[in-house]
Order: sequence, then structure tokens, then C-alpha cells
Amino acid sequence: MITENIFFIMNIIGLLAFAVVGALKGIKKGLDLLGIIVLGIMTALGGGITRDLLVNTIPYALRSPNDMGVALIGVWCAIVIFKVFNEDVSNKYIIQIPDAVGLSAFTTTGAMIAYNFDVSFFGIIILATLTGVGGGIISDILLQKTPSALTEDFYASCSIIGAIAFYLAILSNLSLEMSAVICSIVVLMIRIVAILCKWSLPKFYSEQK
Amino acid sequence: MITENIFFIMNIIGLLAFAVVGALKGIKKGLDLLGIIVLGIMTALGGGITRDLLVNTIPYALRSPNDMGVALIGVWCAIVIFKVFNEDVSNKYIIQIPDAVGLSAFTTTGAMIAYNFDVSFFGIIILATLTGVGGGIISDILLQKTPSALTEDFYASCSIIGAIAFYLAILSNLSLEMSAVICSIVVLMIRIVAILCKWSLPKFYSEQK
Amino acid sequence: MITENIFFIMNIIGLLAFAVVGALKGIKKGLDLLGIIVLGIMTALGGGITRDLLVNTIPYALRSPNDMGVALIGVWCAIVIFKVFNEDVSNKYIIQIPDAVGLSAFTTTGAMIAYNFDVSFFGIIILATLTGVGGGIISDILLQKTPSALTEDFYASCSIIGAIAFYLAILSNLSLEMSAVICSIVVLMIRIVAILCKWSLPKFYSEQK
Repeated sequence: MITENIFFIMNIIGLLAFAVVGALKGIKKGLDLLGIIVLGIMTALGGGITRDLLVNTIPYALRSPNDMGVALIGVWCAIVIFKVFNEDVSNKYIIQIPDAVGLSAFTTTGAMIAYNFDVSFFGIIILATLTGVGGGIISDILLQKTPSALTEDFYASCSIIGAIAFYLAILSNLSLEMSAVICSIVVLMIRIVAILCKWSLPKFYSEQK
Repeated sequence: MITENIFFIMNIIGLLAFAVVGALKGIKKGLDLLGIIVLGIMTALGGGITRDLLVNTIPYALRSPNDMGVALIGVWCAIVIFKVFNEDVSNKYIIQIPDAVGLSAFTTTGAMIAYNFDVSFFGIIILATLTGVGGGIISDILLQKTPSALTEDFYASCSIIGAIAFYLAILSNLSLEMSAVICSIVVLMIRIVAILCKWSLPKFYSEQK
Repeated sequence: MITENIFFIMNIIGLLAFAVVGALKGIKKGLDLLGIIVLGIMTALGGGITRDLLVNTIPYALRSPNDMGVALIGVWCAIVIFKVFNEDVSNKYIIQIPDAVGLSAFTTTGAMIAYNFDVSFFGIIILATLTGVGGGIISDILLQKTPSALTEDFYASCSIIGAIAFYLAILSNLSLEMSAVICSIVVLMIRIVAILCKWSLPKFYSEQK
């Protein structure tokens, strides 16, 4: 009961956040209204559909009208945000903060589904990470950008660390709900600190040389 | 019986049309013969495989030799079209018209499959739209273009309107075959008018500024 | 028993090879450590996950910890290779040779899975080819390059020829293991000869004109 509620809430938070991210990226790219809506929906639904396909269930987004409705509300929020910020989308945080929220929420839903399907430790990590970063990768590929999951050090790795925290919490006999909450807090906190502190790791090779 | 025939015919029309589209895009990009064949096949099979994966069935394209054979005929047609037009592929309609036909046919197959699997209203729209636009998105991603589904106003939205028409037809107690035919006609007509009239919506933000 | 061993070995060879390919491409692109790891893992796991999704099984990579562990070893190998070659990744062979090995190994696993699921002749070809080229396509899309499967004549076609050889071997009443070995040798030999001899086919149209 509580578990389903937490999954339900996390899913809605993730959908809203990624719809905002996708729509704002589309606005920034200069797409028109329908392009923005399509990109917002695809970004929002992408991660969850990937998650459901990987465990062989018919995607929840196909069975329920809720997901697409929530995604549309997210697109509407993005337009409001865009107007509130006086049409200035050069401020990176406008996209990065909802992106961090979505990453955290979807990573948690991925970990919860993985737990339900009784996959291995690495399975939990892979499913949580792909669910978390899936939406962002889809929107970046559609807009022909190199995905953040590859170029930002602490993006995919936040999901990985969150999934490990989830696993350790489950091992410590914490309840599934508690573990889910811990997972989402860990991902969100690390990601936001990484954004604010501009954490990065050294590169091996510089393309320009 | 009739239903299966309509599905079968729509599927073949869609495969042929998208194989032509994919192969012509490959020719325009300067790929050589095998690249053109691979792109034509992927564009043709992409939408259907996406559709079958989403409802958890082994893709029809894997179980039957027909789909790939039809795709190869489509690639052959593309080469003939290319020669007939004196190797001039700058005329946009050469690609846009078969693309509209494929969009219409695959949207209809997606809607029919969604009906069979008894998904919700939004499920029908999502499945019909992803099936319709899937092939084009795959070919555009492979050729590093921003997909038409994002940049053209009346592309994905034609599929959405067609799926709504399909749903209303079913609700009005029309037969599945009749609803499918209505869906395909609605998509095709709106898409062709949108191409000819260059319909577009205002943008929020211009990337160039 | 032997069959499982051959599948297991081919899978590990493919994972290792594609993890090396993905990580080296990431190093060349100037990604930092975590980007390289993510790209290496996605390239390595991509083909196999595609294969398992297409036949509707929960991906092996989710159920077993082995796959991701092997991919991490591959990423480590890539860094060693990069250092051994004095940080000079301009030599094409460094990436092309492991890529050919991975193509061969994954094509074979795709053909074996297709055989197990009793799909048609064309199904074997499609599944073997998509499994073989899947990882490379994913890494090229993520790095915004036009995939080798489209631009190189004898890339996807090596998989196709290997799958046909596999089918003919099965038809000739050879054992599944023998057919798998033949398939992998055919793919690897054709691909390496194609790389060394720079085989190519004429183009229809030059994009530059």
C-alpha cells in the first residue's frame, strides 16, 4: 500500500520534472509548440518505458492515461517557467535542477521495480541507472547533443551510487519504502552538490589536440 | 479475416513506403549501396519492431520472412525513383510523399494492435504515434538530423489526430476495419495538406539570438 | 552443455571487445573517466540487451552480475591499450580490430539465440545482425557520429553473411556449436579483410554536389 504510493508519487515527480526538462530543451533549441510537446512527452515517458520493457511488462504509460496527462502538465509548467524567467533560458540551473529531481525520482522507481523482479545486485544498478538517465539521453539524442550521462561526471554515477545505497538499505533490513526514500535523497543530494561545485574528473585525452 | 487483411495490407504499404524513405535519405546523404540497404531496412522495420516490443510480443519481422523481403523491394523502388527523377533528390516531395503514406499506414497498424491489446485511450494514442513516427525517427537519428517528429508541426500530431479519429470511430460502434480505414485517411490527408500548405505554429524562442 | 559454453565464451569475448571499443571511442572524444566507463558499459551491453528484448526475455545483463563486471574489465583494458600506444588513438586499427572481434562474437550469440527461439530464416539474419551491430550503433549515436553500420560497406553485411553461413551450416546438419564457430570465423575473416583492403562499393550520389 505505502510502497505503491511511494512508487506512484516518485513516478509523477519524475514525469513532471522530465517533461519540464524536455520542453525547456525544446524551447531553447527553437522548436515550435508541437515539437516542444512531443519532446516533453518523450523525455518524460522514455525512462519509464525503457524500465518496463527491460523487465518485460507492457509499459505502464500505455495502460494508464495518467502518465501522458502528467507529462502534458509538465510541458505547461515549462512554458510558465520560461515566461517567469523572462524568456531567458541561458541560466543553466533552470534545466539542471528539474533534471536532478527527475534523475532522482526515476532512479528510485527503477530500483523499486528491479527489487520486485528479484534481479541481481548489478541488475538493480543497471535498471535504476537506465531508468534514471533514459529520458535525458532520449532528449539529447533527438536534439543531437552528446548526452549529459556521458559528458558530466556526476550524472549517471549519481544513479549508480543511489542504487548502491538502495541495495545496502534493503540488505540492512530497512523497509522497501525507507530504502526508496534513501535512494532518492542520495541521488538528489549528490547531483545538486555536483552541479553547484562543478565536480569533475580529469580527462585522458583532449579531442582538440 | 477482413481485419487481418487490412492489417496485412497496411503493414506492407508502410514497409514499402518507409523503405523508400530510408533508402532515399541514405542516397541523399551519400551512403553507398549497403548503407542504403541497411538504412532502408531499419527505417521500414523500426516502427513495427517498436510497436511489437511495447506490447511484449516477439516482433512480427523476426517471425516472418515477408517484412524484410518487402523492405528490400522498397529499397529497389527508391533506386528506381532516384533514377527516374534524374538523380535530383533536392525536390522535397520525393521523400515527403512516401513518408506521409508510411506515417499513415503504420499509425493505423499501431492503433489496431493497441485495440487488440485493450490498452487505454492514451495507450492507443501513444502506441499509434510511436509506431507511425518510429521509423522516421530512427532514420533521422542514424543520419544525425533532428527528427521531423520534433521540427515539423504537423507530423507527430497527424498520428495523434488519426488515433483520436480511430478511437471515436470505435466508440461509435463502427467496425475495426472501418475505423482503421478512417484513421489512415485522416492521417494521410492532414499530413499532405500540412506539407502542401507549409502549416506551422509560432515558436517561443529563436535559437539564433 | 557445450552449446552453453560456446554461447558463454562468445558473449564474454563480445562484451570485452565492445567495452574496449566504447571506452576508446570515449577517450578519443575527450570524455572523462566516468563518461568513458558509462560509454564502455553501454556499448558492451547494448547489443545483448537488444537481442534479449527482441525475443522477449529479461536481459541476461540484468539477471547476472557477470556482464557488467566483464564490461568494466574491458574498460580497464582500453585504458591500458591507450597508454601502451603512447596515447596515440589516431591509428584506426586500435578501434577497428576489437570492433571486428565484438561484431563476430555478438553476431554469433544473436544467431544462436534466434535458433533457440525457432524464428524464420530472415529472423535469424535480423537478430544476428542487430545483436552484432547494436553496440556500435549505440556508441556512435551517443557520440553523434553516423554509425559504421551505415557508412562502412562491409560492416553490417559481414553479420548478414555470417548469419547466412550459420543457417547453411545448420541446414547441413552440422551441430549448433560447429555452426556457431563457423559463423564467428566467417564474420571475423570478412570484416578484417574488408578493413585491410579498404573494400567499398560505388555510391549513387555525392552529398557535396
